[in-house]
Amino acid sequence: MHLAAELHRLGLEEGRSYEMLKSLLREAPGRLSGSPMAEKAVDWAQRTMQSIGLVNIRRQPCMVPVWERGEVERLELIEGEKRSQLPILALGGSIGTPAGGLDGELIVVRSFDELRTLGRKHCEGKIVLFNRPMPRALRSTFVAYSQTVPQRVSGAAEAAKLGAKAVVVRSMTTLVDDLPHTGVMRYQDGVPKIPAVAIATRAAAQLAARIKKGEKLRLHLELNCRSLPDRRSYNVIGEIAGSKHPEQIVLVGGHLDSWDICEGAHDDGAGVVHALEACRLILAAGLRPKCTIRCVLFMNEENGLRGAHAYDREHVGDKHLAAIESDRGGYSPLGFTTSLRGPALDWAQNLAAALRAYDMGAMIQGGGGADISPLKKRGVPVFGLATISHRYFDMHHSRRDKLEAVNPRELALGAVAVAYLAQVLSEEAGRR
Amino acid sequence: MHLAAELHRLGLEEGRSYEMLKSLLREAPGRLSGSPMAEKAVDWAQRTMQSIGLVNIRRQPCMVPVWERGEVERLELIEGEKRSQLPILALGGSIGTPAGGLDGELIVVRSFDELRTLGRKHCEGKIVLFNRPMPRALRSTFVAYSQTVPQRVSGAAEAAKLGAKAVVVRSMTTLVDDLPHTGVMRYQDGVPKIPAVAIATRAAAQLAARIKKGEKLRLHLELNCRSLPDRRSYNVIGEIAGSKHPEQIVLVGGHLDSWDICEGAHDDGAGVVHALEACRLILAAGLRPKCTIRCVLFMNEENGLRGAHAYDREHVGDKHLAAIESDRGGYSPLGFTTSLRGPALDWAQNLAAALRAYDMGAMIQGGGGADISPLKKRGVPVFGLATISHRYFDMHHSRRDKLEAVNPRELALGAVAVAYLAQVLSEEAGRR
Repeated sequence: MHLAAELHRLGLEEGRSYEMLKSLLREAPGRLSGSPMAEKAVDWAQRTMQSIGLVNIRRQPCMVPVWERGEVERLELIEGEKRSQLPILALGGSIGTPAGGLDGELIVVRSFDELRTLGRKHCEGKIVLFNRPMPRALRSTFVAYSQTVPQRVSGAAEAAKLGAKAVVVRSMTTLVDDLPHTGVMRYQDGVPKIPAVAIATRAAAQLAARIKKGEKLRLHLELNCRSLPDRRSYNVIGEIAGSKHPEQIVLVGGHLDSWDICEGAHDDGAGVVHALEACRLILAAGLRPKCTIRCVLFMNEENGLRGAHAYDREHVGDKHLAAIESDRGGYSPLGFTTSLRGPALDWAQNLAAALRAYDMGAMIQGGGGADISPLKKRGVPVFGLATISHRYFDMHHSRRDKLEAVNPRELALGAVAVAYLAQVLSEEAGRR
Repeated sequence: MHLAAELHRLGLEEGRSYEMLKSLLREAPGRLSGSPMAEKAVDWAQRTMQSIGLVNIRRQPCMVPVWERGEVERLELIEGEKRSQLPILALGGSIGTPAGGLDGELIVVRSFDELRTLGRKHCEGKIVLFNRPMPRALRSTFVAYSQTVPQRVSGAAEAAKLGAKAVVVRSMTTLVDDLPHTGVMRYQDGVPKIPAVAIATRAAAQLAARIKKGEKLRLHLELNCRSLPDRRSYNVIGEIAGSKHPEQIVLVGGHLDSWDICEGAHDDGAGVVHALEACRLILAAGLRPKCTIRCVLFMNEENGLRGAHAYDREHVGDKHLAAIESDRGGYSPLGFTTSLRGPALDWAQNLAAALRAYDMGAMIQGGGGADISPLKKRGVPVFGLATISHRYFDMHHSRRDKLEAVNPRELALGAVAVAYLAQVLSEEAGRR
């Protein structure tokens, strides 16, 4: 039986990815870096690697940021005596408000340009709502996300430069509904830190519509989220030793951490399971990869990439033939994105061609993923599992990212695709 | 802007498919042929065609079978004084049991061959469990379904030929869980009619495991489902009049009826909406198709195809350039299956090529769908919208087939694909 067919059969008939995911989510939901749940995930990963039969299993220390959401998280619309609660989540990294909260008049913008055009005169002392919707008409929702997410990451800093006292960012989803989606934000050196929250899309649209009609709206924001000193955490690493060139490496990985308010089923429980199950499938199929397949479960992808940088620092001398990351959820795989171009891209397309029989053989010029981006910078060919992305941002960084949103067949196929690519890449050891 | 890009933009930015679906499911869930809900669906379809701006809207009568599930639907495992309820649904078309039910010893088979090997000696007076699981390792779950569904459709007749008193059929899904999936079954002339139910996969597996260990199991089955005389119902038809060759037809269609125990969101609310929204998109894009685009919403696909045959009989004189059916749910479209072969298949692949930019340009040799199969027999080129099928049989014919299982983007894209193919096919009017 052809390799792709055999891995496909094993993955769908005897696969363990769904039960692995269920076990991770049961033991360690809400695995934000530095939290007790993240440490449980580290334990889980080490045990799971042992049960699969990986070798050279180890924890790789890294210092991670510690951010806690706290107990108070409230945005209210003030209308005379009436106060209406708005559906929000603090953004990861945000400071809290002063005790008792802060009040401010709301202004609405759709872009940093629009913000700068308003200028300090209109921003000073205000609460700024960034209301740019994720564009809906793009083929890939990941592209739509990358076009819109700067308002979440840098909105607070840009607004603070003009004297704003807080920012409210429209959630990153194409749906119009009542569920807020969190995510990371970053302050800039020399710019005042102001609180930042994400608001559900429907509420954002309603506030913006009222402002557009000329209403003046006052909001009350109260948060006690906070950052604590960095703590030690870990990447978890295990291997299938190479049979001919054990010193050469094909890396497969995903990230162990997730946001605090969800199970982290798709982001990135699915990627963790893809990497582990890919190794298990290679062993179950009785394959003997020429080079070492190294499974790296990274810590702190969501808010710092500290695990990625620790890995890169400590393995700068290793010969990585390639690195494969899965961080686009457990949806139907389409194939891979890759840093390769030109003739090398053609070569990679050929390498993945057998996956086309299962509708997952695409090889698209692009990146590999955040955790392997340091390797990419050093010239290692990187690959990212590409998935059908229509549902991804419906649940991303929200309470909807839970086991029930994952389909067992779709999850299993992602592991099959990663296993196949890792195995055929390992056959290149000694040739390149 | 290229046609595919414009339809894609319109469908995702200003599409109405999800709200249309919501409205159909709110007004007429459980639209089994001959039921009051099916008549509500007919009214809904006529109104919706009017609101979209179709012309020549009409009801096309057909006599449909009427089957009612009744109030009693019970399969019990008898163990001494204890009776455990098993999760079942009567199959559509099944007769009821005698009042008070029937008891019998259970035997288990995986195929008709195995049944015949057992022979009358082992089947007489027994209740037969058909326990063949849907194979999991096939690329398409529809292929897995077609390989397994004969036990549901013909199991009762085959078992009755050997004297069995009832059949229990393992539900058609690759999941192992507690939800039964119904569907149609058929009796054979000259063969006694015996009651037939579907059982959830986990319960089927558990019963089979106990029998395999040598246990004798007795079951009690009680059903008061029944068939009533045929009633009049309707296909609903509306058109966009052709601008140059109005006498030539490109048909787009789905089926209005559904099973009684679900909302019928994917099966085939999605197909109904794909056909309607495809027409709306063609109009919204300001296109003037050369030939008539005829939207046909068929009645009675699930248990009789009476609507399909009525349409075929009455339109035998029409020149159909092509017919497109959507009956594979509202999941991400892959492209189309088609009856065309050889050079004609190449031609169709070219025709759909612009959809490849949206990962929905596949053109796969196959059929078109049940409702347009009479047209296929007469040589009309048929096309069926193909979807990513991993989730389809998780919900098919079960209570899980409801609005929440449908993703708005995925649904919208199906309509875009149908609109594009209908429009480019209509440009062939006068050429062929």
